[in-house]
Amino acid sequence: MSGLIRRVVIVGGTHGNELTGIYLIKKFQQFPQLLHRQSFECVTLLANPKAIAANRRYIDRDLNRCFANEDLANPALTGYEDRRAKEIAAQLGPKSQPNADVIIDLHSTTANMGLTILPSSKYPVNLRLAAYLSALNPLVRVCCGVQCNQDAPMLRSLSPLGCTIEVGAIAQGVLNADYLQQTERLIHNILDYLDAMNQGEFLPVPPSLNVYQVISSVDYPRNASGELQAVIHPHLQFKDYEPLSDGEPMFLKFTGEAIPYRGEATVYPIFINEAAYYEKKIAMTLTSKQQLRLEAV
Amino acid sequence: MSGLIRRVVIVGGTHGNELTGIYLIKKFQQFPQLLHRQSFECVTLLANPKAIAANRRYIDRDLNRCFANEDLANPALTGYEDRRAKEIAAQLGPKSQPNADVIIDLHSTTANMGLTILPSSKYPVNLRLAAYLSALNPLVRVCCGVQCNQDAPMLRSLSPLGCTIEVGAIAQGVLNADYLQQTERLIHNILDYLDAMNQGEFLPVPPSLNVYQVISSVDYPRNASGELQAVIHPHLQFKDYEPLSDGEPMFLKFTGEAIPYRGEATVYPIFINEAAYYEKKIAMTLTSKQQLRLEAV
Repeated sequence: MSGLIRRVVIVGGTHGNELTGIYLIKKFQQFPQLLHRQSFECVTLLANPKAIAANRRYIDRDLNRCFANEDLANPALTGYEDRRAKEIAAQLGPKSQPNADVIIDLHSTTANMGLTILPSSKYPVNLRLAAYLSALNPLVRVCCGVQCNQDAPMLRSLSPLGCTIEVGAIAQGVLNADYLQQTERLIHNILDYLDAMNQGEFLPVPPSLNVYQVISSVDYPRNASGELQAVIHPHLQFKDYEPLSDGEPMFLKFTGEAIPYRGEATVYPIFINEAAYYEKKIAMTLTSKQQLRLEAV
Repeated sequence: MSGLIRRVVIVGGTHGNELTGIYLIKKFQQFPQLLHRQSFECVTLLANPKAIAANRRYIDRDLNRCFANEDLANPALTGYEDRRAKEIAAQLGPKSQPNADVIIDLHSTTANMGLTILPSSKYPVNLRLAAYLSALNPLVRVCCGVQCNQDAPMLRSLSPLGCTIEVGAIAQGVLNADYLQQTERLIHNILDYLDAMNQGEFLPVPPSLNVYQVISSVDYPRNASGELQAVIHPHLQFKDYEPLSDGEPMFLKFTGEAIPYRGEATVYPIFINEAAYYEKKIAMTLTSKQQLRLEAV
């Protein structure tokens, strides 16, 4: 990746009940000078207006899974979010030659994930940005999905650079002042880094970066008809990013019996007890902790 | 109040996205012997099946505001929850001569209210039960609404005895193992108390009871078009039941300015930042702390 950043897009309300991003975008729309930087244009987008109005994650299906290339090209997909994804892709994409050089997509989670960055790609410039942010604020963690590239079906994949920001634990439909402020600060840090880079100045970045790499997801124990048989074990609740080793409790059955994690490798679960993932059959996502060395500029 | 308790009804899913009660009821339906007591019948009810299936608080309107006598008698009210309220009132009511002697209605809240009991009435037997529970577990708090009687529009008002149980902070659509266990224990304590009382044994109750008496509710600061202009101040977030005095911060404007509480009396806010109350225009409910002396048996 090289070349100048000309256009940065900050997105909120991809999920209509994640209020942190929605209210930050409303604030930026009221005070656009907050986003003003010398070397690029920065614009905002509320991605799912109908879901925002309904205070629901989505109307027909999860908008943040509608951006696979084959879905964007499929005229048979006509649900509200499918149509909305095509409109947004026309505005910010296409993936091969995007109108947005950087996309920052603002989310919240009921899991205790603090300030998490999910980079859109592992391009060196994107990883250096992540390393800059986590060096600046040790509470920032960096997590790479299985598809940490533009093949992913997330909105952020329209552009090669940028990230999703996940903050939590925040209940759906709730505003948390602390996380609003921390998320806004993180956005300003990103814009400042990009603005300096555009002008040939590279803000200090550590030589390596800790990354939580997604391995797989684990569903809740269920019976034959799909009903939950257990919940997250109290010892694991709110323990996102903490190590989980063979034999340690993972679930608690309604009958009172603990179900342990079984696996040779120590893992670092995230998205533990995310409300929106019950229907996706995800109780938590397991990651491994890796250290990436960063290429020099 | 005198006379024997013959029928206790435990209700869950009055709000379809408050999973604690829903899953406890499912557990009790699978293991009915858990609710078996010698001196009365104990049955369960999932109050809002359509909202439970949709994982939403309600379909047409809040079921837990549909039980005013005039609404129950109004044939023009035909929304899903209005019809459901009439069915439930036919089953457990009428208020004047209920089929249920005691109703326990299980709720959760995104506010940090721990284990809160909202008694259906201030009848001595009901207050003694509340005092018993809070003496047994100091984490149990007792809160009386403005209408702490059968005139209230809540489901619990179908019967003169019993309470709503509110547990939190729990996000909507999420199960929390700790709160599931604590709520189940509270239900067992209630049933044990009633069972002993039915058999002429009065379990030990302290001579007085701390009650948080609802005074009024406070809305978020909004602009002329109703849009939020501020959020709960970080110093107040999760501080339910803690004293709030004149001049202490209450809200934080999006522009960064704090808005203090103004009032001569120290108050004890509850339901701080409850997700479902944004649309009800309630940012928090102010209470006063009172000590009630209990009548001897």
